[in-house]
Parts: sequence; C-alpha cells; structure tokens
Amino acid sequence: MFSLLAATPAPKASTASNVPSQAAKMAGPTAAQLQAAERLVGPALTEGHAWARLTELTDGIGPRLSGSEGAEAAVQWALRSFKADGVKAWLEPVKVPHWVRGEERAELLTSERFRGRPLQVMALGGSAATPPEGITAEVVEVSSLEELAALGDRVKGRIVFFSHDMKVAEDYGRFAALRGRGPSVAAKAGAAGALVRSLATASLSTPHTGSTRFEDGVTPIPAASVTVEDAGLLHRLLAEGGPVRVRLVLGCKELPEVDSFNVVAEVRGRERPGEIVLIGAHLDSWDVGTGAHDDGAGVVMVMEAARLLARQKPAPRRTVRVVLFMNEENGLRGARAYAQAHAAELPRHVAAMEMDSGGGRPLGVQLRAGEGAPELVRPWLSPLVALSAGTILPGEAGGADLSPLVPARVPMFGVRTDASRYFDVHHTHADTLDKVEPEALAKSTAAVAWMTYVMAEMPGLLVRPSAPPTAPSLTAPPSLGRPPVPGAPPAGAGNVKSSDR
Amino acid sequence: MFSLLAATPAPKASTASNVPSQAAKMAGPTAAQLQAAERLVGPALTEGHAWARLTELTDGIGPRLSGSEGAEAAVQWALRSFKADGVKAWLEPVKVPHWVRGEERAELLTSERFRGRPLQVMALGGSAATPPEGITAEVVEVSSLEELAALGDRVKGRIVFFSHDMKVAEDYGRFAALRGRGPSVAAKAGAAGALVRSLATASLSTPHTGSTRFEDGVTPIPAASVTVEDAGLLHRLLAEGGPVRVRLVLGCKELPEVDSFNVVAEVRGRERPGEIVLIGAHLDSWDVGTGAHDDGAGVVMVMEAARLLARQKPAPRRTVRVVLFMNEENGLRGARAYAQAHAAELPRHVAAMEMDSGGGRPLGVQLRAGEGAPELVRPWLSPLVALSAGTILPGEAGGADLSPLVPARVPMFGVRTDASRYFDVHHTHADTLDKVEPEALAKSTAAVAWMTYVMAEMPGLLVRPSAPPTAPSLTAPPSLGRPPVPGAPPAGAGNVKSSDR
Repeated sequence: MFSLLAATPAPKASTASNVPSQAAKMAGPTAAQLQAAERLVGPALTEGHAWARLTELTDGIGPRLSGSEGAEAAVQWALRSFKADGVKAWLEPVKVPHWVRGEERAELLTSERFRGRPLQVMALGGSAATPPEGITAEVVEVSSLEELAALGDRVKGRIVFFSHDMKVAEDYGRFAALRGRGPSVAAKAGAAGALVRSLATASLSTPHTGSTRFEDGVTPIPAASVTVEDAGLLHRLLAEGGPVRVRLVLGCKELPEVDSFNVVAEVRGRERPGEIVLIGAHLDSWDVGTGAHDDGAGVVMVMEAARLLARQKPAPRRTVRVVLFMNEENGLRGARAYAQAHAAELPRHVAAMEMDSGGGRPLGVQLRAGEGAPELVRPWLSPLVALSAGTILPGEAGGADLSPLVPARVPMFGVRTDASRYFDVHHTHADTLDKVEPEALAKSTAAVAWMTYVMAEMPGLLVRPSAPPTAPSLTAPPSLGRPPVPGAPPAGAGNVKSSDR
Repeated sequence: MFSLLAATPAPKASTASNVPSQAAKMAGPTAAQLQAAERLVGPALTEGHAWARLTELTDGIGPRLSGSEGAEAAVQWALRSFKADGVKAWLEPVKVPHWVRGEERAELLTSERFRGRPLQVMALGGSAATPPEGITAEVVEVSSLEELAALGDRVKGRIVFFSHDMKVAEDYGRFAALRGRGPSVAAKAGAAGALVRSLATASLSTPHTGSTRFEDGVTPIPAASVTVEDAGLLHRLLAEGGPVRVRLVLGCKELPEVDSFNVVAEVRGRERPGEIVLIGAHLDSWDVGTGAHDDGAGVVMVMEAARLLARQKPAPRRTVRVVLFMNEENGLRGARAYAQAHAAELPRHVAAMEMDSGGGRPLGVQLRAGEGAPELVRPWLSPLVALSAGTILPGEAGGADLSPLVPARVPMFGVRTDASRYFDVHHTHADTLDKVEPEALAKSTAAVAWMTYVMAEMPGLLVRPSAPPTAPSLTAPPSLGRPPVPGAPPAGAGNVKSSDR
C-alpha cells in the first residue's frame, strides 16, 4: 500500500488553527495527513470489508424497495453494521410510499401482417394496475414529449409507446423523462396505457423498471417498460404501417404509506465538530435484482469510509456524517426528510457527496462549489493518483438525494466512477453481486474514504456555490463562526435557520 | 462485388465430362464457374434477400416450437417462399411432440441467513409440471453427473441444482449434458426437481431453455433453467453452508403429438441429377424469442442459396436439395423422418451441410470426409477469400439434423460462422432480429451459396468418411455409376437401399 503514496513527498506542515492562514488553506496534506491516507486507502484496498458488506446487503437481504420488508431489514442491518464498526448511528423517520408489483404480462396481438406473441414487460414504479383482464389497445409510437403533444386527440384510448435510441450511459439524461414524465403526459391526453422502451445500454431481453410520476390531478394509467428487443419489434411493425395492438395486464398496487427511516451515522470532528461533511448513498433499491450497483455499492463505500475514519487518531477536523437515504428510487422522501429535519444545520454542511453511480472503478473527483475549489482540492489528490483517480474531472458533483440541499448552497464533491456499463443492469433483475468487480469497488471505496477525509480535514473550505436560479428568495445565512472564504459569492443560503441540532 | 473476385485469376478450364480425369477432379473452378461465383456472392451481399426473409420469419411469424401454430405458419411460409423464389418445394410429413410452456416461477425461501426472493427460471423443454402449488425442497448442488451419482440417496426428495462454469461458446459441449441428461439422472435417483444453471456466455438475468430428455422408464420431474445470476446466488448461499430451500412452480404440459412437416426444396442438377448435395437448417425454434440466430439465420441462408442457384444457367452439375428440418430443438423427428424416407437415396447424398450456429460472419469452411477432401476443395475457395472465409478450418462439419446421415457415411461440409456471442442469446427471449448483423448474415449467406455450388459443381466428389464405430453392420453400397474416388476407404454406406426416390 505504501507504494501508492511513495511518489508524493510530504509538503511542509501547514498550520491547523481555527483560523488558518490563506497559505495554509491552500496547502496540501501534511506528512501526518498523508499517513491517514495510508490508513484509509490501504485497508480499503486490502481488507475486502466493503465487498463483504455488499454481499450481506445483496445476497443476504436482497431487494429493498421502500415500504417492503427488505427495506426494513436493510435499515436494521445498516444500523447494526455501523454499531459493529464502532460508528455512532441512529434512525431518522421517513414516511415512504409502498408500491408493490403484481402480475405483469403483455401480448402483441395477431394481425394480418404478423403473428402475436408475448412481450417482455415490467411495470414502472408508480404505475396503475389494469383491470384483471388487462387493457387492449392500438399502439401509437412517439419518441419525445413534443411528438406526444403534437398527436393531440389521436392518443385517446391508445397505448402510447415511448421509443428512443439510448445507446450509451450518457444518453440516460436525454431519455429519462420519457419514463419519468411520459406516462403522466400520455394520461393527461387520454391514453389508456404506456409502454416505455427500457432505458438500457445492453439487453438480453432485460426489462428495466424505474419510477414514473403522475402529475397532481392526473389519474395514473398502467405504465410498463418493454425490453429493447420488443421495443425494436414494435418499432419495426409500426414503421411498416398498419395497426399494432397490444394487451397489457398489470397487477401492481399502491398500498398505504409506511413508516421507514434514513440511517444516519457520524464520526465527530476533533476541532470543528459543528461543520458537517455529509456522505450519502441510498439504502432502498428497486424490487427486482438486489441493487448491487444501485445503490448497494454506494452504501458500502460510504459505510466503509465511516468505519475507517472512525479508527483515525486524531479524528478528522470536522464531523463526517453518513446518511443512508430511504426512498431515492420512487419518491426522494428520505432526502426531503433529511433536508427538513436538518434545515437549521444546512449552512454548516460544508460539503456533501452522494455515491450513486454504481461500484465501478474510480475515474476522478468532481466538485460543485464556488470559485477556487479545484485549486483548494487539487493538492490533496496525490493519494488517488495510483488509483487512476487523482484528477478533477469536468462536470458537477451532485446526487438525487442531495438535490434538497442545493437551495442551501451546500458545496458538493464526488468520486466519479466508471458507469459505462451501469445502465446494462440499472433497475433490472440483473443488478446483482456478480456484476460488481471487487477490485473496482475497493478502489472507489478507497477514493471515497480519502476524499471524505480531505473534506473533513483540509484547513480551507469549499466556497458555497451560487444559489440556483429557481431557488426561493434567500435570507442571509447565519454566521458559521469562521471568516468568509475568499472568493465566495455573496453570502446566502437556503431558507434555513441556524441552530445546533 | 466483382472486386471480391478480381484477385483470383481464372485457372485453365477443366474438362467437365461425366468421367472427369484425375487432373480435372483436382482442378479449381473454370472461368465460367468463377462467373457463377460472381452471380452468387454478388447478390447475396447486395440484395438483402436473406435479411428480408429473416425479418419475415422472426418479426412476422415469431416463435415456432414444434407442434405450435407458429411452426405450422413457418412451414407454409417456407413452402410459399421457395415457390416465389422459383424453387421447386414440397412438404414431407413428420409427427412431432407438442410440449407447451405454462406458468413458471420459483422462489428462494427465507432462512435465518438470508431473505427469500423470486428466482428467474424457465422450464426446460420436456420438463414435467409441478402440482399447482409447486414443489418445495432443499437444494443440493452438483457440477457433474459423476458428482450426482456419488450423492446416492442424498438426492431423494431434493431439488438437484446443476451448476457449472460455462464462460465461452466452446464450453457448451462440456456442460450441455447437465441440461440434456441431468434431470433424467436426478429423477432416477429420486430427486423432486431439477434446476440447471443456464448454458450461457452472458446474462442480464436471462434464462436459457433447451431440451431435457428423460430416459425411457424414468418418470419426468419438473426441470427448469435458472439465470446465471440466480445460479450464482444459490451457489454462494450453498457454499456458506446451511440449507437452501426453493419453491418451484411449473405449469408446462406435454400435449398429444402433432402432424408437421419438413420443407424440402430442390434445384435439379444439369448433369448428375441423381447425386444430391443436401443443405439444411431447422425451421423450428424454441417458444421464447424468435429464433433469429437459432436457426432463422441458417434457414434463410440455405433458402437464399437455393434461390440464387436456381437462377444459374447452366444449373450446377448435381442436384441441390434444401431441407428445412422440423423439430431439431426437442426431438430430431424431422431429421429421423428425412433419413428414413430417403434411406434409399442416402448413398447418392454426396455432400451435406447444416447451418445451425447462428448468423455470424463466416470464418471458413469445414469438412467431414475421407482422405483428400481438403486438396479437392481448397482450389475452389478463392471466392471466399475476400469474405475472410477462404480457408479450411480444423474440426469436423456436421449438424444435429445430419446425425442420422452419419451411418450412411454422407460426406459433410459446412461454413463455420462466428458463434462467439451465439450463446448469449441461444434459447432465450433475446434471440431476436436485432442480434443478427445484416452484413455478417449476408457474408455467410454468400459463403453458403458458393460452397453449395462448389459441392454441386466440382468434377470430383468428397470421399465418403469411415463408418462411425457404433454404426450397424453395413451392406455394400449400390454403385453410383461413377468410378470410385481415389483414396476412398473401402466402399460401404449405411443400412440403406438404392432407389431413385
């Protein structure tokens, strides 16, 4: 392990007072801090603890959709595991939706031009059920919400088929609205149902579920994903002209909401315990597969970071708080509950990270902060060089569960992982332990542990980013008992109050 | 297209009498014969006819398991298509099994060590049904039939889980017996059911069906494949020790046998019409997916070869017979019916090929014949060079539907295709049109057309191979009205009679 760090000569020790000098703030790690890197990176790469935890979570507990027994088991497992690791942990209540999958099948009906056959479908989370005998309707294909709008009345009584051309992971953002919002728009236009081509970068007849959200006031309709293969078939048959009719049977249900929890853990800072570095992941998964990449990998990375940080003597300067969010997949209730419960603390959240792009190898570091952040962070990246992750990458750090922290201008950081194959398995039965490479997971865990330490330890702080354009009008932030960071934008945080939680 | 052939200077014209000289027999194609290459390879590569036919067969007709309406539709389609192509065609009766899939699901039951969850399974063709409530039993894992035998009584009442480590296409042969014979052996030992890890080179939660055969006198048990992912889970849970219990529900049924057909077509030889070059593929598929690779690709290759050969003037020297076999997948009834119906003709089958390894690009040519075959064939391979298929590859040509021709010592030839990804989709819902590359299909079709022409046209004949060790005692073959091929083994064919059908 030491060879990983040997190439990095220790810089002169920087001062570590409560009010560091400008020079100290910009300096890289001291020799002592680099020894912490050895004690974080080394065990993360060699002990296999994150992998063992991922095995427990996926093979042992399995699927854990919000509201399910699996989710509750995961909560108890996480709490127990933090305690076993010597990390203080507690539960924070979250009310979550409880959607359950039922029977699901679909059938292409025989026409003069082709013989009927089953289609491989999977209900989208939030879908309505069909009557027991299903719905039967002609299929109309669209490849964008604009195209759907242009169809007007021709959508009435039809099954809207959302087609697209997703090929690589980077396409997800372009097409995700077809799944997330498409069915609601179709319902509003009078459609009987919706089929969405799976958002996938590969398929061996593998339907991908995911959340679909019906706008307030819109009555949900049955909405399912269809495999890439069957989407291709529908597309070709429709392109030839002539009607294509499908029968869709979905038995899913929206049950009463359930009491659940975020699992929160903390390693208290030695010097500025009131400053919080949040590292998160989401504990819930879809009900298919075992959420090994999404987001078991993120969960065990941040848990392992906490375990290793809790063993450091001295403890890092600031407090590291781990949040395992509940209900990222179909509601973000955990994220909202956290932001609400900790509203008063948000101005003291000095950095936040969510790991939620799978267990691939680390590629580098991302930031979302005000001016000067790369200059502040770059000197601390040397321990990541041998992990091939020692650079700051373009693009902004963030995460769905961190979105409620954006109005509070919480600076964000992240370890970007290789997600090029993530959407092969995302939201499918195939998101299982065998898809995660132990070596990649260990490397990303090491990078997460070190970057968390960096944020908790470095003398300087990331400048808070500008408020987003859509943020509500902001009140002046409370003083955090430290001088303003140079180059910070005009002070301002979300609509939050100062208090020590 | 001509550029494909331009690099090949036409050799001196060889004689083409009924009794070619030894030198003529060993010569390559004449200029006129090379012009036939242009007329075969060119259209195969440019007209897209095989692809269009594959679209009709897969998108239009879809799955076509023996005994199903889809199979019957495929028979009528093939007959119609041959006629539309100007190729004489007819049906030959075959009685086929009629196994149908029903409900199928399995569940890992919760234990102290892990939470239960659904398992992704697919009944094997030939499986028995479970009672409606399913069977519930402890799982015992074996990785070979020897291991199963060694378990003795410990199999009684259990679900035998056949595990293996298939990684690449070449592994299929090593492990196929676990699926084909394993459940029968388990049944004989008193097992309640069988689960077989899918025979796959990739998986995105993709179960692979396939045939399992219960020995005479053994009562069939429920037998299903399980995805690679869930097989891995079972393997890991069993490796940790402690019981693993599974509930398996299968609603499959063996219905009464059905009258079906081989589809046979012929392009009559100009000079030796009694000598038959058989080119085959199988028209049936599994009931999942649309059999695009298995064996839609083979079907359209040989159909296209026939269409192009039927347009040749002059016609090839010998008769080319296309056989689209029914019931390769779960019975070989078509293959047996053909061999039986044409027993008298088999000694006049001078070469036979079955294309049944998917629609990948051509890699080269394979043979199964007596001495001197490569020397005879090699001079004819120049038109395949630009297709990267102009070499004779090691390994023997053959095919499941050709196995009943082996005792008759029919020489075999084949175009080997790239099957490295064939077992990603083999016998799955994912064996669909989108998995076939039009360019690869066109190239292999071109190679098939040319090699068929070669076998039908070259002055010499492949020497008949030795009888297999297990062949019944052989009677002397009828004279075929031509001098024995030099270097031929002692004359002898299967237990067949001579007659012109």
